[in-house]
Amino acid sequence: MAEQARDDRFDHLFASTVRERLDGGGYGSSASPAAEDAVPLTYGFPYPESFPTAELVAATETVLEEEGADVLQYGGGEYVERLHDGLLAREHDRGIDATRDELIVTNGATYALDAIASTFLDPGDEVLVESPTFVWSLAVLDNRSAELTGVTLDEDGLDPDALEATLDAREAAGEATPKLLYTIPEFQNPTGATLTRERRERVLELAAEYDFLIVADDAYGELRFGGESPPPLAAMDDAGRVIRVGTVSKTIAPGVRTGWIVADEALADQIGTMAAGGTNTFTQSVLGRYFDAGHYQPTLERLLEGYETRRDAMLDALERHLPPGSSWTEPEGGFFLWVTLPEGVDAEDMLPLAAEEGVTYLPGERFFVGDGGRQPAAEPVDDRTGGKRSARLSFSHCTPEELDDGIAALARATEAYLE
Amino acid sequence: MAEQARDDRFDHLFASTVRERLDGGGYGSSASPAAEDAVPLTYGFPYPESFPTAELVAATETVLEEEGADVLQYGGGEYVERLHDGLLAREHDRGIDATRDELIVTNGATYALDAIASTFLDPGDEVLVESPTFVWSLAVLDNRSAELTGVTLDEDGLDPDALEATLDAREAAGEATPKLLYTIPEFQNPTGATLTRERRERVLELAAEYDFLIVADDAYGELRFGGESPPPLAAMDDAGRVIRVGTVSKTIAPGVRTGWIVADEALADQIGTMAAGGTNTFTQSVLGRYFDAGHYQPTLERLLEGYETRRDAMLDALERHLPPGSSWTEPEGGFFLWVTLPEGVDAEDMLPLAAEEGVTYLPGERFFVGDGGRQPAAEPVDDRTGGKRSARLSFSHCTPEELDDGIAALARATEAYLE
Repeated sequence: MAEQARDDRFDHLFASTVRERLDGGGYGSSASPAAEDAVPLTYGFPYPESFPTAELVAATETVLEEEGADVLQYGGGEYVERLHDGLLAREHDRGIDATRDELIVTNGATYALDAIASTFLDPGDEVLVESPTFVWSLAVLDNRSAELTGVTLDEDGLDPDALEATLDAREAAGEATPKLLYTIPEFQNPTGATLTRERRERVLELAAEYDFLIVADDAYGELRFGGESPPPLAAMDDAGRVIRVGTVSKTIAPGVRTGWIVADEALADQIGTMAAGGTNTFTQSVLGRYFDAGHYQPTLERLLEGYETRRDAMLDALERHLPPGSSWTEPEGGFFLWVTLPEGVDAEDMLPLAAEEGVTYLPGERFFVGDGGRQPAAEPVDDRTGGKRSARLSFSHCTPEELDDGIAALARATEAYLE
Repeated sequence: MAEQARDDRFDHLFASTVRERLDGGGYGSSASPAAEDAVPLTYGFPYPESFPTAELVAATETVLEEEGADVLQYGGGEYVERLHDGLLAREHDRGIDATRDELIVTNGATYALDAIASTFLDPGDEVLVESPTFVWSLAVLDNRSAELTGVTLDEDGLDPDALEATLDAREAAGEATPKLLYTIPEFQNPTGATLTRERRERVLELAAEYDFLIVADDAYGELRFGGESPPPLAAMDDAGRVIRVGTVSKTIAPGVRTGWIVADEALADQIGTMAAGGTNTFTQSVLGRYFDAGHYQPTLERLLEGYETRRDAMLDALERHLPPGSSWTEPEGGFFLWVTLPEGVDAEDMLPLAAEEGVTYLPGERFFVGDGGRQPAAEPVDDRTGGKRSARLSFSHCTPEELDDGIAALARATEAYLE
């Protein structure tokens, strides 16, 4: 069957970023073999029973009955303010005393990152990112014509020595300092690593010394079910250099598509202008009522139990099924862990076989970024994160039984692949 | 009282677009005197009773009860598909046979325009816009570092002779052809003008001849309560050069923040990638149910009556109150009309006086764009649209009684200003 050719008659009118993407550059592939019967460890979806459906129905009724004309109008009404209160209270609980002027509510965390990228980046500006890191964030930054430089991380998060070495090397070469460092300090996507307190201090010192801002994507920080949290970077930051990105996608539901930014007043106005275009006051009002009615904390506590059970089931299955030479991270929260399979495995190449055996995952190499290139590095910056033989496994979506089946299938595929 | 200075310690890290805006360039000011008792003819807000609140409550209950786990998950479920069906059916009713692959649902029309700008524009690329046109669209394009060139319009919409002259002049000067023409063909914001059928044909011919794409922002096209619609540009376009932008902000409610793009398959994939980042499947499912339950058409018919009554009230008041030397457009739909006050009026300068008399509006000159400059032209490209003595008046939001009071106040302010 012949593949239909792309219709390229308007390609000359695309922006250069798009033309480069069409030429094979760019990030963001999450293509996976179609395998309906396979256990999907691929995506970071919450498990279906986690959603507070009844609470959202009740909140919708209340807000539309009490202030429907405001809820549905540009700008919203009182319940949008209640959402601001709720988000600022959550930030306060994390040790961050932000004001209303420092909070920007957005249509999700990805839009938040996009608005931040637009506010700071001219085409060709350099952004430092963890390597590996969340592929869709790479795609967003790449779409804004940023040049991306990967900095290694390990089980303690972003490596400040590697960060300093990169900054030094750029300085020695007379290159401009990157304006932004994009990091996921808590339960990092894809590795599950959390940045240690000592490393947080080093990263903040480097930001001051080399004059860059830190974009801290905190999608998972509230989902800690074991151990102790170091303070968020923003709580340790006296200089206003940390821009926090939050989302309720993992603590309420992805479908309500609401995120936020907390940034110093010297930054917030301009980021807010770039994030303009109106937000969904209907959803925001529903969420405002949801916070106001006290649903957030009990739901979160329920989710922590659900995710801990799933994390435990996956760790247990890995221990029982995987062949010698395998290793994995043991995150105390979040959605993901990072597995490194025995020498000789190419996780991308093995994926179709794994799907046949009954499991899908995201191959690790898709999360890596090269040294300033638009193409992901085929190999990691160093070997601590496994490179080609690594994969991201999501424990957030499946039942414990499915997780066990999935890991057993991963073990069978690995053994078959290595034969 | 001393004004507090902006905290500028991170200004050197902003993108050049932001720095230029801080230096006083840029578009998008909708600042208006605080005047709580004044009749607000300023903003294009729907009137509060227009919102189908009960229908939205019912739709929310249904979708969360029937498929809550899908509605709240990434991607959504069946009711998101029903929204696609509903939007494609509306497009079909307008004469546009789009496929599912040609439809991109977005978090509102402004995001849609932003995604289109990102897909096609490199910094410094030229965009042709009507002058005057919607200020926030100017701000979006400006934020993407586009250079804007204004093309005159009159009561029959965009002037194709002026468009051709601009294109010819650029070609003669050896300048690149603009990639995009941004137009609001139906009940234009701010003038209320609708592009005639003959002019539509000319504009499409020019797009083919000079190789540009047309972004047709159709926020108001369904809100016609008199006369006959010419076919939308996309319905007359055999070449795939028209990218349509739609929104339910004016036909359902702004608060649900849902828009869409219809574009040729040769364009839609790449625009969709730039619009990525997830959409609000909760809201989209509610709207999907709203369409599926048949609420759209009856609500629209009710709105047409409401807006016609308001338009009539404003026209009647203008006739009775405004001094000789005033003129105004008489749109057969939409939210706005465009008034030109007697010689000697400067509508921007008069605004505080008008607010004191009891009315606010948006001064006309804010909608004008200069010849490729980032600053609005102080004068229109030609004098057919009134320039400094013009204003946009919104009849969408107020009651007929308020509209009468507002126009009476405008008349008093004008007379006082000219004394």
